[in-house]
Amino acid sequence: MHTPVPDYLNEILRSCQFYNQGEVASYIPELARVNPDQFGMAICMPAGTVYEEGDAQSEFTIQSVSKPFVYAMALRDRGLEVVNAYVDVEPSGDPYNAMSVDPETGKPSNPMINMGAITTHCLVGEPEFTPLQRSDQIIDVLSQFAGRTLAVNEEVLESEYSHRYRNVALASMMRSNGFIGIEPDDAVWGYTRQSAVIVTARDLAVMSMTLANGGINPVTRERVVPEWVCRQVLSVMATCGMYDSAGDWLSSVGIPAKSGVGGGIIGALPGQIGIGTFSPRLDQHGNSVRGVEACERISRDLGLHIMELPAPSIEEIGQQSRTESGARLVAVQGALTFPTAELVLRRLEEIPQDETEVVVDLTFVSRINKVGDRMLREGLRRLGQDGHVVTLIDPHERVPSPVAHDRTDIPVVEDLNSYEDA
Amino acid sequence: MHTPVPDYLNEILRSCQFYNQGEVASYIPELARVNPDQFGMAICMPAGTVYEEGDAQSEFTIQSVSKPFVYAMALRDRGLEVVNAYVDVEPSGDPYNAMSVDPETGKPSNPMINMGAITTHCLVGEPEFTPLQRSDQIIDVLSQFAGRTLAVNEEVLESEYSHRYRNVALASMMRSNGFIGIEPDDAVWGYTRQSAVIVTARDLAVMSMTLANGGINPVTRERVVPEWVCRQVLSVMATCGMYDSAGDWLSSVGIPAKSGVGGGIIGALPGQIGIGTFSPRLDQHGNSVRGVEACERISRDLGLHIMELPAPSIEEIGQQSRTESGARLVAVQGALTFPTAELVLRRLEEIPQDETEVVVDLTFVSRINKVGDRMLREGLRRLGQDGHVVTLIDPHERVPSPVAHDRTDIPVVEDLNSYEDA
Amino acid sequence: MHTPVPDYLNEILRSCQFYNQGEVASYIPELARVNPDQFGMAICMPAGTVYEEGDAQSEFTIQSVSKPFVYAMALRDRGLEVVNAYVDVEPSGDPYNAMSVDPETGKPSNPMINMGAITTHCLVGEPEFTPLQRSDQIIDVLSQFAGRTLAVNEEVLESEYSHRYRNVALASMMRSNGFIGIEPDDAVWGYTRQSAVIVTARDLAVMSMTLANGGINPVTRERVVPEWVCRQVLSVMATCGMYDSAGDWLSSVGIPAKSGVGGGIIGALPGQIGIGTFSPRLDQHGNSVRGVEACERISRDLGLHIMELPAPSIEEIGQQSRTESGARLVAVQGALTFPTAELVLRRLEEIPQDETEVVVDLTFVSRINKVGDRMLREGLRRLGQDGHVVTLIDPHERVPSPVAHDRTDIPVVEDLNSYEDA
Amino acid sequence: MHTPVPDYLNEILRSCQFYNQGEVASYIPELARVNPDQFGMAICMPAGTVYEEGDAQSEFTIQSVSKPFVYAMALRDRGLEVVNAYVDVEPSGDPYNAMSVDPETGKPSNPMINMGAITTHCLVGEPEFTPLQRSDQIIDVLSQFAGRTLAVNEEVLESEYSHRYRNVALASMMRSNGFIGIEPDDAVWGYTRQSAVIVTARDLAVMSMTLANGGINPVTRERVVPEWVCRQVLSVMATCGMYDSAGDWLSSVGIPAKSGVGGGIIGALPGQIGIGTFSPRLDQHGNSVRGVEACERISRDLGLHIMELPAPSIEEIGQQSRTESGARLVAVQGALTFPTAELVLRRLEEIPQDETEVVVDLTFVSRINKVGDRMLREGLRRLGQDGHVVTLIDPHERVPSPVAHDRTDIPVVEDLNSYEDA
Repeated sequence: MHTPVPDYLNEILRSCQFYNQGEVASYIPELARVNPDQFGMAICMPAGTVYEEGDAQSEFTIQSVSKPFVYAMALRDRGLEVVNAYVDVEPSGDPYNAMSVDPETGKPSNPMINMGAITTHCLVGEPEFTPLQRSDQIIDVLSQFAGRTLAVNEEVLESEYSHRYRNVALASMMRSNGFIGIEPDDAVWGYTRQSAVIVTARDLAVMSMTLANGGINPVTRERVVPEWVCRQVLSVMATCGMYDSAGDWLSSVGIPAKSGVGGGIIGALPGQIGIGTFSPRLDQHGNSVRGVEACERISRDLGLHIMELPAPSIEEIGQQSRTESGARLVAVQGALTFPTAELVLRRLEEIPQDETEVVVDLTFVSRINKVGDRMLREGLRRLGQDGHVVTLIDPHERVPSPVAHDRTDIPVVEDLNSYEDA
Repeated sequence: MHTPVPDYLNEILRSCQFYNQGEVASYIPELARVNPDQFGMAICMPAGTVYEEGDAQSEFTIQSVSKPFVYAMALRDRGLEVVNAYVDVEPSGDPYNAMSVDPETGKPSNPMINMGAITTHCLVGEPEFTPLQRSDQIIDVLSQFAGRTLAVNEEVLESEYSHRYRNVALASMMRSNGFIGIEPDDAVWGYTRQSAVIVTARDLAVMSMTLANGGINPVTRERVVPEWVCRQVLSVMATCGMYDSAGDWLSSVGIPAKSGVGGGIIGALPGQIGIGTFSPRLDQHGNSVRGVEACERISRDLGLHIMELPAPSIEEIGQQSRTESGARLVAVQGALTFPTAELVLRRLEEIPQDETEVVVDLTFVSRINKVGDRMLREGLRRLGQDGHVVTLIDPHERVPSPVAHDRTDIPVVEDLNSYEDA
Repeated sequence: MHTPVPDYLNEILRSCQFYNQGEVASYIPELARVNPDQFGMAICMPAGTVYEEGDAQSEFTIQSVSKPFVYAMALRDRGLEVVNAYVDVEPSGDPYNAMSVDPETGKPSNPMINMGAITTHCLVGEPEFTPLQRSDQIIDVLSQFAGRTLAVNEEVLESEYSHRYRNVALASMMRSNGFIGIEPDDAVWGYTRQSAVIVTARDLAVMSMTLANGGINPVTRERVVPEWVCRQVLSVMATCGMYDSAGDWLSSVGIPAKSGVGGGIIGALPGQIGIGTFSPRLDQHGNSVRGVEACERISRDLGLHIMELPAPSIEEIGQQSRTESGARLVAVQGALTFPTAELVLRRLEEIPQDETEVVVDLTFVSRINKVGDRMLREGLRRLGQDGHVVTLIDPHERVPSPVAHDRTDIPVVEDLNSYEDA
Repeated sequence: MHTPVPDYLNEILRSCQFYNQGEVASYIPELARVNPDQFGMAICMPAGTVYEEGDAQSEFTIQSVSKPFVYAMALRDRGLEVVNAYVDVEPSGDPYNAMSVDPETGKPSNPMINMGAITTHCLVGEPEFTPLQRSDQIIDVLSQFAGRTLAVNEEVLESEYSHRYRNVALASMMRSNGFIGIEPDDAVWGYTRQSAVIVTARDLAVMSMTLANGGINPVTRERVVPEWVCRQVLSVMATCGMYDSAGDWLSSVGIPAKSGVGGGIIGALPGQIGIGTFSPRLDQHGNSVRGVEACERISRDLGLHIMELPAPSIEEIGQQSRTESGARLVAVQGALTFPTAELVLRRLEEIPQDETEVVVDLTFVSRINKVGDRMLREGLRRLGQDGHVVTLIDPHERVPSPVAHDRTDIPVVEDLNSYEDA
């Protein structure tokens, strides 16, 4: 059989093809020359599979889609506190190229508009970097996000730089307000070069899945940025990514996203999907018309929305039974985070005092986060304190030994058979 | 043993107790009289368990915390399209009692500020309802959210109504702009009565978990509003719930929330947790100081953030093995949504053409949404078309029969033994 | 002969007749029913002469043209300090019916927009006035401004009051902010009644000339408000009178003005002219299209602009000669204000010490303000101290006796002959 | 005797000396080094007399006080229409260094804030001027306004230019919006140099009187700019000159004014006075504290306010009598503008048909503007047509011959005696 996923994607693509309105960006001739009817789409799954349809291999310049990735680099290189001191995370309601700053501090509103993006550009790498060093490092890391070596469109770079005055205005204001330390012209050159990086819709799918995957490129398996960085970047994309109408996007689409005037859009839903679309006709806000439509259909047709009930209805978690030898068996499954761990602990609590032997089976546990780990260990420790004899089945080594914080000896086995044999 | 969850909660409560700044709301004497040092907290889990600490049973008026619930009622009663025509969903950056409307349409910015909340109040129930009927219905549904019959604080109602002029200004503007059809004074009376409903932190935890649970009260198991309503309400809470700094709240706390000047705050993370806090001292934005701090700690300490990786690392999903009789066995686990179903379909795709017998085991599948259902059926249908003989193990009846859309006969059994026996 | 002034006026009227664009106010049927092609114009001169052309006797409702006059009443009744505490005098750039207040104090921006006008309405008369008493007094004083008894259009009043909600919103906000003390509905009723007063273009010309004449009706010679009130009102009209583009109006027309949606406009240039126009078609800001055009032409064609050089080139002031008897004669002419009095004092300073006899002739002095009076007296006193023998010719009694502050005896005579005879 | 005017000025100076609050501008060390307690004041009268008190000869940099003069140069060099196309004339309510533009056109709000001032700077001289040529020409014309050769403070220029980034931001935005055509750095250099010109309070008094005198320097008698330019500049100063609270300044002081962070303020009342003050301590808006106070007292104590009744109570104008020979004598006095000419024409109208001989005496007419001239000629022409025999007494040649438009022969004589003799 063949998986129907490409068919679903193709169906979405075809239904969006009808949208012919909008205009290609034309403020520089290099962007205006693009074929306006191109339309490509790709999705990347957590396990790294990429599905693509249409002109998903067509090249275009990344433009503002670079902003969340460069923000991620700044966060990685300087830390949350420093970056927060240089750029706010508030939706501005202003156009992308507006002078949008906090009226009291002069701080740029968020890293998704030019003003904040120029500021975060300057925070990447070491402060003493030359403009070229900083720019090269950014292209390197963008390449890691994409899983292949990306290049710069030199004609676009040159042409955009010759129309640089508005961005020079923004950079000069940031310099004046103390938020960048280098010459405005240099900052704008580097920022313009970052925007001129050549990508495809497929690249964007992989790049956004990397953000949605906690910072690990799902294809190359390389860690690009830490997990906390992705949480921060996705949060900011959720409110500031699509120009204007932040609330409308979040409620109707519910996928953190970012668009660029080159025609690209990314969408990233944590742990679930990375989306990349390319279609050069833009609406009046500068978002790709078909790209917006495609994101809306993906959200609606594929049930992908950040506020969709994500978790299992967890009744089955931690269901109790007995082993063949009569011991109390608590089989845990799924991801062990606070709400699931809470349930497991309640199951453990229900075990009668006089049932000595307890087996906790983690075979079907796919992931334990820090809180889940802490809670499970504490539960096991308390069981031990209460006089139960606990055995852990943990074939995938989800819980590093020693299991209990107070080093109580909890035996760990590979599977139920090993337990029964022991 | 005893579950350590109450201990965690208590720890958070104690660490927030130090925050003594802020002032009790004092624009009416009835609010100013409250004991400012009260502090209560409760969380409600998806399965309905409620943990509470401190003054979680203290009564106070719900105030603006009623807004998301009344917005939910309006959505249920009038549908998304109509409600969207009456109120936007954009963060305004304005104070809660500001004249905050779209400059062109005159539509209120969002349902979480007074202007929009008065408008949504008027959308509840039938258009021909009297003010009292509308108000009574709102209190009924609030009671369903809480799982108990709620009452009105008549002194607060009377006192707030005597200070009604600012809200009358907002309602009159809405009437003038055509967004409400009843007398401004009546709208304000109903809105003021809705705000004077008496609740506890425990109530708020259950109410918010109902929103986070797709509209089913986790304690009473009663459906209060449809699932799509909750998705919409939580989305709007995410950007407009906490006055000012929408982006900062979403990135640093990441839990859709709403506060009230009575000192209450709710937080709701879909499928994971409902939070209710109560502490009357307010910061300059009108948010409970300790409540804000508690939400931040719950997010940080319990790893609860909307952009946190929610899904299993799904490698284990759909792992293949063989049954004792040698048939190919695909055991699916967890929630079956688009990203997990995609993986299952790929597993099915990998089955060699010459392996005729295929068993798909849904025993550990906790939940299938519409997309997952559609994808699984399509996969099974294609397997059948390719000549495989498929058997489904589905003890919890996750997939309603007939399984395949084209009514191919796919046998469904209770467990693996039944299959082997057959 | 016949004065050509009516011809000039007629020329302006005919040249503006071509402007057919714009729409009659239609938010209530009573206003929409008016004949849109009416066009009337009148000017009133300082001495009370009124010239009128076209439909200058057509009746219409005064609407917002009432605002400066009611502001004048509030100033007269409560004083500048109190009124300043209730309403700012800043151009807002907002539409006339906007919620336009100082963000910190909640004070309305200026008395020419509805918000401030409702506030000043409430400041007229005694605080304990009933709404009807206040309204009646306003109509009385408006009648004094016009020099005839004005009436209310009851249909317009009723219709506008039934569309009162936007104004109720503004009044409720003012009540909430503490700037009005009566019920919002009452304030709006009174304000609506004031706006429904029936006037003609001729009335408006007399009313505005009263403002431009220091508060004395030039026709009835009755003092309606003090001079300082007019200075304040004209200043505020200069920046806030014509909706939007305050700076453009002041630079291109340079006549303090106020328009109303009934089609009326007044213009008032201190000491020079009062203008009243009526034409019901309005531009998008709510100003009468032909009225605006007429004001522009009057300014340009008649050289009437507040920044036009108003004063005489004053070389001739205080020219010296000798009387027949050989005394030094200083003949003063024109209005004696600071700049002219300064020149007279310099002339006096130039008189050689040995010329004992000095005659100061005020025959051609038309007006002396407080400063001019003080300066002239001081000059005369100093001349006396220096040993000169001073005689004053003052047939119109411009300088009240005794002339010098220290009661030096300065003889005052009727004319030069009397001096020579003495 | 000595004129008391210096005493009045000294009194005002001493009463303002108590104001010690405010801080010297300190954004560059060169400004911060100034002695904060300096206080100088000068006024210049229409006839060129200058009175000065205190540190009126102390030198300081002109800073933003240069803006109205450079705006005047741009108007002179490019005309009103062109300059209006480049800069609006609307009060902005924004700080002087704000990004304050029309949201739709991107045009700067007015020429009194930096953004508009940089734009008008670039409009001076020929488009092909080098930055140095433009800057030199500006200094030349500023010198003509002052009546002496002004120089640049090179240390201030250098220091301000090294803090140029905010202004570069503004200039880059203007370049981007198409309102300046030269390199932003060059525009800012020229603008900074213009601001570093060294002046004294005495200079400012002469410069502002030149504006108030229709463009003729009252001391050198040189015409610097046309009269219409002054009307435009003073209008804009009236609404945009003093940062913030345009309406409050116009109503309470009523003198078009402009301040600079160097501590200077100018005030200019057309035809009446030019004021220059210097005191380096600034309020929070950047206006000199004592300078503001001094302007307020000059307005109040000397009765100088743009809305003050300026004109003569004109009853005496055109009073009729008889010559010795029995002819009707109409003696006109004062300035002949529209309102006064209207009165003269009415006097002429009153002459009975059967009184053939009419003498119109202009001996005491100090000034006739274009409208007055046109009206008087028309009146004389009509008198002639009606059969009157008219003689004009016009010793100062106020009315160029031939008098009547239709070349009717109206004899003109020097004085009444000449008439009687003829």
